[in-house]
Amino acid sequence: MEPVNYNYVAGEYIVVKALENGVNIMGLTRGKDTRFHHTEKLDKGEVMVAQFTEHTSAIKIRGKARIYTRFGVLDTLDE
Amino acid sequence: MEPVNYNYVAGEYIVVKALENGVNIMGLTRGKDTRFHHTEKLDKGEVMVAQFTEHTSAIKIRGKARIYTRFGVLDTLDE
Amino acid sequence: MEPVNYNYVAGEYIVVKALENGVNIMGLTRGKDTRFHHTEKLDKGEVMVAQFTEHTSAIKIRGKARIYTRFGVLDTLDE
Amino acid sequence: MEPVNYNYVAGEYIVVKALENGVNIMGLTRGKDTRFHHTEKLDKGEVMVAQFTEHTSAIKIRGKARIYTRFGVLDTLDE
Amino acid sequence: MEPVNYNYVAGEYIVVKALENGVNIMGLTRGKDTRFHHTEKLDKGEVMVAQFTEHTSAIKIRGKARIYTRFGVLDTLDE
Amino acid sequence: MEPVNYNYVAGEYIVVKALENGVNIMGLTRGKDTRFHHTEKLDKGEVMVAQFTEHTSAIKIRGKARIYTRFGVLDTLDE
Amino acid sequence: MEPVNYNYVAGEYIVVKALENGVNIMGLTRGKDTRFHHTEKLDKGEVMVAQFTEHTSAIKIRGKARIYTRFGVLDTLDE
Amino acid sequence: MEPVNYNYVAGEYIVVKALENGVNIMGLTRGKDTRFHHTEKLDKGEVMVAQFTEHTSAIKIRGKARIYTRFGVLDTLDE
Amino acid sequence: MEPVNYNYVAGEYIVVKALENGVNIMGLTRGKDTRFHHTEKLDKGEVMVAQFTEHTSAIKIRGKARIYTRFGVLDTLDE
Amino acid sequence: MEPVNYNYVAGEYIVVKALENGVNIMGLTRGKDTRFHHTEKLDKGEVMVAQFTEHTSAIKIRGKARIYTRFGVLDTLDE
Amino acid sequence: MEPVNYNYVAGEYIVVKALENGVNIMGLTRGKDTRFHHTEKLDKGEVMVAQFTEHTSAIKIRGKARIYTRFGVLDTLDE
Amino acid sequence: MEPVNYNYVAGEYIVVKALENGVNIMGLTRGKDTRFHHTEKLDKGEVMVAQFTEHTSAIKIRGKARIYTRFGVLDTLDE
Repeated sequence: MEPVNYNYVAGEYIVVKALENGVNIMGLTRGKDTRFHHTEKLDKGEVMVAQFTEHTSAIKIRGKARIYTRFGVLDTLDE
Repeated sequence: MEPVNYNYVAGEYIVVKALENGVNIMGLTRGKDTRFHHTEKLDKGEVMVAQFTEHTSAIKIRGKARIYTRFGVLDTLDE
Repeated sequence: MEPVNYNYVAGEYIVVKALENGVNIMGLTRGKDTRFHHTEKLDKGEVMVAQFTEHTSAIKIRGKARIYTRFGVLDTLDE
Repeated sequence: MEPVNYNYVAGEYIVVKALENGVNIMGLTRGKDTRFHHTEKLDKGEVMVAQFTEHTSAIKIRGKARIYTRFGVLDTLDE
Repeated sequence: MEPVNYNYVAGEYIVVKALENGVNIMGLTRGKDTRFHHTEKLDKGEVMVAQFTEHTSAIKIRGKARIYTRFGVLDTLDE
Repeated sequence: MEPVNYNYVAGEYIVVKALENGVNIMGLTRGKDTRFHHTEKLDKGEVMVAQFTEHTSAIKIRGKARIYTRFGVLDTLDE
Repeated sequence: MEPVNYNYVAGEYIVVKALENGVNIMGLTRGKDTRFHHTEKLDKGEVMVAQFTEHTSAIKIRGKARIYTRFGVLDTLDE
Repeated sequence: MEPVNYNYVAGEYIVVKALENGVNIMGLTRGKDTRFHHTEKLDKGEVMVAQFTEHTSAIKIRGKARIYTRFGVLDTLDE
Repeated sequence: MEPVNYNYVAGEYIVVKALENGVNIMGLTRGKDTRFHHTEKLDKGEVMVAQFTEHTSAIKIRGKARIYTRFGVLDTLDE
Repeated sequence: MEPVNYNYVAGEYIVVKALENGVNIMGLTRGKDTRFHHTEKLDKGEVMVAQFTEHTSAIKIRGKARIYTRFGVLDTLDE
Repeated sequence: MEPVNYNYVAGEYIVVKALENGVNIMGLTRGKDTRFHHTEKLDKGEVMVAQFTEHTSAIKIRGKARIYTRFGVLDTLDE
Repeated sequence: MEPVNYNYVAGEYIVVKALENGVNIMGLTRGKDTRFHHTEKLDKGEVMVAQFTEHTSAIKIRGKARIYTRFGVLDTLDE
């Protein structure tokens, strides 16, 4: 059983709930070169619980969605 | 008795309760390559308590379900 | 007296109380391969206090039960 | 005086109070193989204060009892 | 002056006050083999402040007593 | 599986929500030489959750946006 | 100047105040062999502030006394 | 993947919002020799979220701006 | 400059204020052999702020005094 | 990328806002020899956010200014 | 630049304010041999902020003074 | 870039504000030999923010001043 570093599982997470079909959750790479490394699509009502990882330092959300963060809950398109 | 790394059991967890049959809880891999590595199906009323692990950095929930997180309780399809 | 790793006993626990006979508490394995490694059956009124361990990263509950977690108390079949 | 590992005594504990004779408190083993390794019987009014240990990762209570946990107090057979 | 391990003195304690003569406070061993290793008898009004140690992972109280724990105060025979 | 340093995922994050098209989120480099290393453009309603990293020690936001920080919520152009 | 282990002084303490002459505060040994290793007698109004140590894991109080603990204040003989 | 020191990303940050064009945010060097190493100019409504780093131990703000700190919110020129 | 162990100065302290002449504050030794190693006499109104140390694990107060502890304030002879 | 010590960026900071022209913020050296190593001048309305560093252990403020500290807000010349 | 141990500056402090001339603040040595190693005299209105150190484990105050401690504020001679 | 010890900047600080000209802030040495190693003079309205350091374990204030500490705010000469 190989040892595993502490931060793998201790990273903070956010929660995204799609309020319409086709919401995009895009992970941006952490390194010197910032680019998208993964896009997850959610349909209406689907929920994603996502951690920051050693590969992801930013998350971009596009489409009507509700986002739960340490600063509270916000909707992408309520204004 | 082999030593085991601290983070195995200290990882945070979420709770998912199925509100209909056929709710899917999908674990996404942590590495550079983000893909599903496990899907657990829940029938109505079944509950899953799931940790982030060294293999899982994101969890996607599909189907009518109630999700308990550090940011509170949310339903997948209430809107 | 052999040394024992910190996380054995510091893992968080949940509490499950069976509200009917035949409640199943299923432990899912932590590794790359997610599968059930143990199922404990509870009869009505029996209580199980269970930790996450280096072998268990998810716990599935089937049957009428009350579950006590860090997010509060929930019943499996109340809706 | 031999050194002793931190977690022996820092483990969390629960309290069980028997509300009838013959309450069983069963310790389940922590390893890959989950089985009972000890059963303690309590008579009415007896109290057990029990820690999780490097050998015990789950505790099952059978019989009429009151259980004190970090989530509050619950009775086994009150419903 | 020999070094001494941190956990010797940092272990949590409980308080037991005897409400009648002949209250028994029994320490159960921590290892694979769970058995009583010490029984302390208290007469009415005597108080015992007891830590978990590297030898004691469970404490059983028999007889009319008041117990002070992190979950509050309970009496053995009040019901 | 290579070890990964704790701070990759434990870094604090802020949340930026675009209130118009063309909001710019610019990451400034951490080193002796402070310059922009990445600019992310958001359209109205898009949300960015961004961590400080070993490459980013300052973030500049230009355009109508709402910013969620540990000090509360502020709008760029409300005054 | 010889190094001294952290736990010598960081151990928790309790306070005992004698409410009559002849109150006994008995220290029980920590090891496998639980026995009294010291008895301190207090006269009425005398106060003892006592830590758990590497030699003391339990403290027994006999006689009319008021005890200050992390769980509050209790009297030995008030019932 | 090279290891990176904890403090790069854990450093505290402040938030500065320009209330007029031409606000200056000047970073002062940390070492024995205190001097400006970077000046960032903000136009009205632009926001800067800035960490202390291994190169910056003081930040000077000139021009009409609102500053969010651990001690609350202050304006540069409100008096 | 010789290194000094953390616990020298981090030890907890209590405060004793003499309410009459001749109050005794007696330090008891920490080791296997519990005995007085120092007695400090206070006259009325004098105050002593005393830490537990690597030599002192118990403190006995005799005479009319007010004692400030983590559990509150108590007088030696008020009852 | 060279490792950098934790305390560079984790040091506490204070905030000084000049209420008139010519406010002086003077950093005093930390070592055995206490002397000024840097003086920063602020004009009215300018704000300085300053950390303690390995070179600065005291900060002296001269002139009409408002100072934000962990103990609250104070003005230099309000009395 | 020689390394310096953490506890030098992290030690707790108390504050003493003299309410008359000639208040004595006496530092008692920490070691096996408890004796005065320094006496500081304060005149009325003078204030002393004093830490415990590797040489001082007890502080005795004689004369009319107000003492600020973690347990609150007390006067030496108010009773 | 030489490593620097954690405690240089993490030390606690107090704040002193002079309420008259000629207030003295005197630093006392930490070692076995307690003596003044620096005196800083403040004129009316000047403010000093001072840390404990590896050279300073006590600070004496003489003259009319307001002192901000973890125990609150006090004036030297208000009584």
